[in-house]
Amino acid sequence: MTFRAPIRDLAFALKTVGHPELIARAWPDLDDDTVQAVLEAAGAFADHELAPLNRRGDLEGARYENGVVTAAPGFADAYRRFVEQGWNSLSADPEHGGQGLTKAMELAVFEMVHAANMAFGLCPMLTQAAIEALAQHGTERQKRLVLPKLVSGEWTGAMCLTEPQAGSDLAALTAIARPDGNGGWRLSGQKIFITWGDHDAADNIAHLVIARTPDAPPGIKGISLFLATKFEVKDDGSIGGRNDFRPASIEHKLGIHGSPTCVMLYEDARAELVGELGQGLAHMFVMMNAARLQVGVQGVAIAERAFQQALSFSQERRQGRAAFEDAGGMIYGHPDVRRTLMLMKARIEAARGVCLLTGVLSDLADRAGTEDERAAAKARQELLTPIAKAWSTDVGVEVASAGVQVHGGMGFIEETGAAQHYRDARIAPIYEGTNGIQAMDLIGRKLRANGGETLRALCAEMALTADLLTGTAELAPVGRRLAAGIAALERAADQALAADNIAALAMATPFLKLAGDVVGGWILGRQALAAAGSDDPWLKTKGALARLYASQVLTAAPGLADGLAESGDDLAATPAHALAG
Amino acid sequence: MTFRAPIRDLAFALKTVGHPELIARAWPDLDDDTVQAVLEAAGAFADHELAPLNRRGDLEGARYENGVVTAAPGFADAYRRFVEQGWNSLSADPEHGGQGLTKAMELAVFEMVHAANMAFGLCPMLTQAAIEALAQHGTERQKRLVLPKLVSGEWTGAMCLTEPQAGSDLAALTAIARPDGNGGWRLSGQKIFITWGDHDAADNIAHLVIARTPDAPPGIKGISLFLATKFEVKDDGSIGGRNDFRPASIEHKLGIHGSPTCVMLYEDARAELVGELGQGLAHMFVMMNAARLQVGVQGVAIAERAFQQALSFSQERRQGRAAFEDAGGMIYGHPDVRRTLMLMKARIEAARGVCLLTGVLSDLADRAGTEDERAAAKARQELLTPIAKAWSTDVGVEVASAGVQVHGGMGFIEETGAAQHYRDARIAPIYEGTNGIQAMDLIGRKLRANGGETLRALCAEMALTADLLTGTAELAPVGRRLAAGIAALERAADQALAADNIAALAMATPFLKLAGDVVGGWILGRQALAAAGSDDPWLKTKGALARLYASQVLTAAPGLADGLAESGDDLAATPAHALAG
Repeated sequence: MTFRAPIRDLAFALKTVGHPELIARAWPDLDDDTVQAVLEAAGAFADHELAPLNRRGDLEGARYENGVVTAAPGFADAYRRFVEQGWNSLSADPEHGGQGLTKAMELAVFEMVHAANMAFGLCPMLTQAAIEALAQHGTERQKRLVLPKLVSGEWTGAMCLTEPQAGSDLAALTAIARPDGNGGWRLSGQKIFITWGDHDAADNIAHLVIARTPDAPPGIKGISLFLATKFEVKDDGSIGGRNDFRPASIEHKLGIHGSPTCVMLYEDARAELVGELGQGLAHMFVMMNAARLQVGVQGVAIAERAFQQALSFSQERRQGRAAFEDAGGMIYGHPDVRRTLMLMKARIEAARGVCLLTGVLSDLADRAGTEDERAAAKARQELLTPIAKAWSTDVGVEVASAGVQVHGGMGFIEETGAAQHYRDARIAPIYEGTNGIQAMDLIGRKLRANGGETLRALCAEMALTADLLTGTAELAPVGRRLAAGIAALERAADQALAADNIAALAMATPFLKLAGDVVGGWILGRQALAAAGSDDPWLKTKGALARLYASQVLTAAPGLADGLAESGDDLAATPAHALAG
Repeated sequence: MTFRAPIRDLAFALKTVGHPELIARAWPDLDDDTVQAVLEAAGAFADHELAPLNRRGDLEGARYENGVVTAAPGFADAYRRFVEQGWNSLSADPEHGGQGLTKAMELAVFEMVHAANMAFGLCPMLTQAAIEALAQHGTERQKRLVLPKLVSGEWTGAMCLTEPQAGSDLAALTAIARPDGNGGWRLSGQKIFITWGDHDAADNIAHLVIARTPDAPPGIKGISLFLATKFEVKDDGSIGGRNDFRPASIEHKLGIHGSPTCVMLYEDARAELVGELGQGLAHMFVMMNAARLQVGVQGVAIAERAFQQALSFSQERRQGRAAFEDAGGMIYGHPDVRRTLMLMKARIEAARGVCLLTGVLSDLADRAGTEDERAAAKARQELLTPIAKAWSTDVGVEVASAGVQVHGGMGFIEETGAAQHYRDARIAPIYEGTNGIQAMDLIGRKLRANGGETLRALCAEMALTADLLTGTAELAPVGRRLAAGIAALERAADQALAADNIAALAMATPFLKLAGDVVGGWILGRQALAAAGSDDPWLKTKGALARLYASQVLTAAPGLADGLAESGDDLAATPAHALAG
């Protein structure tokens, strides 16, 4: 089936929930025509260059042989064209060779890239994270010699955190970097799950590696961030000899087969310190926060891909007498199939809005007109980041699963392609901090950061939307249910703020789901308001999607809030052996 | 990881929700010791013979080469021992060589089989369906020569319904059977998705095939049921020459790789009529209803398998400082991980109870003491069958997905095994009637069958449980929420009964989910009541599981009921092209 980048949806979402007036003030050159032109060109690249490689990437995957990783068929060529067309450098600082666009635009472009080919998209996505880290914490030499190559995409980046015993708990890592006596470092250890850690698609690979240093204190404070490049970077910027690290194997995974997931061995590899000694985890979080939002976008992307495929199938498959006669007898005419597809679409648009809004807030946190505006944007961005990551990737899995279901028996056959999305989607709730970690971050840090004020301000703003909706005849049910959802979220937040540590941890995941469900309803409500009164068939769906979501998702919010805070004691009293029977 | 059949859970569920007093009256020999002995022996077989083959079955799968299908490594031997030990003939009539146990016992045994090896379990499961069809509609010859071989398991059965253009809509099939002039028939056509349609694990394979006959009316009334055996069955019961049908290929599927899914070609194959001409679909539904309940059990089974694996991992994986100190520092000590596992377990027990209860009702429909009791059991069995199938298989997918998540990054690596369950689980909501079809069956036929009285009677009975719970101090919140859930279900049923055709179809899936959520809560409530007051650690979890489920699942019921019936008009007004953008 043919993928078509959802350009109109992305432009509409940016316009509707992306604070276009504030962005226009900070990026005066980024007018509507420019946005449209960028989205169209990126969409064409995604449709014609990346989507056709997706199935073969799944079937044949990246290869590991004799210590060498080879990218999946066609990926290296496509990557070269990706770089040539400038898609790698959209939001980077012009000072480092970037194009200075907004993060939100970059996210919109990457959504199309991930939807077309999620395994491919991971490569530039990790490079973006490395760019962030070096731009903020790199030495003058790193900024001069390495950063521009990452921005252009001639070289790629890799984030090297996980070790077998240190996944969610990075404090447990054991990789070590020792001073080489000449101001440099020598890095030893093993890292696992290193996405695009080795490959043949670019001239050099910049590994950003966290490791301990010899006399450092135990735990988090002993961890520093290092840069190790696959090939030596000479002082004139040219490439020298091979560094002493290598891939030991790649993983056999459930999905994203086109993305090489490497076990990396560092054997006294040459490395440079990035940022301050002992600040490795803090510096790494710079990369991780950007990457988390990108992973949320992957959830949206894979859902969009699965939705398109299912919608297309539903218009081609004839089966039984369809109750709706407007579908030419195809299964799109079955009310249950149509309901499924519309709810998929509603969830996608809600998640897309949450992710793009979070991206816009990070732009405003950088460049909004006043310090207060920047601080408010930053606080809201931080609050929304775990929601954007976790809620959107859960949507990705659920929508991909629904996409298989719409296909019936054909969905279970690998040739159809729907199954690949179901497999690919499953990684997104796991990496860059599992969704459980996101939930703990939300309830333990982000919500509490200022006594709950950031969430309360968001709720107050959402309540204004609910009022507008309630006053708009055909959207009144959305308004009522959004208002009830907001009230539920506020009650839940009060419970979370009052809870002790264990009770808060016990309610973290349902709290995040509730927050995502409500914020998603707000996004759809805003889109429906923006579309209200139009006769355009596509705009008319916005009201229908908001109503369907409100009636089948938002309605559950009050109940969820009521049951949220009760389970701590039961959890505490249930040992594993008792569950096992 | 080692699988251990959940014998204690199954025995407890049968005892608690399985009307043991009524069953004891109809099956006086089936005392507690017998139940326990059967479960233990079957559990040992599942643990030691079937579970160890599961991973290799996934990796290597069934093979198709030069027109011959070979079962996955070890499957044929295991099947022979399965048959030798009598596991194939548990519930069949002693008149045909069966052991005359209850359907519910058979389901309990098959849950363990499917959990150990779902791809394997499909083979005897399809044979059971063929047994049902021949026992009810077979000719004297078929009952004498074929049925006993299927009961013993020497031969296996296959259900041959689907054609490329005829999946959910069997009326569209084109396979044709022509009289051969000697009282027999000749069958021609192609069938797809034929589970265990060909293999080398048994001496003969009995295909139950639906096909049209030459002068038959179009549509459903033109369809008849035929028996075609891979090898001729001579009048003395011995096997003769090969029949003219053959596998053309097997499918490359997302999961259950150990189960050969065949494309079958019938090329003027010898066949016999089963039952009456033109009644093929009605006869087939005899098989399908039993198979639907079995598929529900598969949902429970794969969820149990995924749960055990995740629970085991959570006790072996150390990561971060766990807030609960009773888990030896392992991730089971993290409240969010524990909550996830307990909710998995609660859902499994709810789905298990729904499936076993449905099986018990089919037993009582056969053998309860009075005609009224039999009729009431049958009505409730028919009401619960689509819920057992669809709700339990949705639980299967959700729990398998959660199982991957508990593993973190390791869950995405195929070697871990969690990913296989996620892949295997995905078929169950699709086959034997998609879950959408089940929902339409529930709301369109089963609910309406007697003006809603069967559901109302069930709600009244559930309300008594809610009262008991509300009066039991530590279960009072379960009682309150169950009562609210029942009231919501009754409201929803009133809306469904009042709805026109399109509105009913539009609300079918959320209605089934609501019904499953509430009935599942009732099951857990009954189990919690039965366990109340005990100091046994395992029994004490029953209350905790019921409370967790009530607070995080039942709480959503009232909201779901409120939004259920509104979407028909919006669906009607949304053409596919408007969604595509």
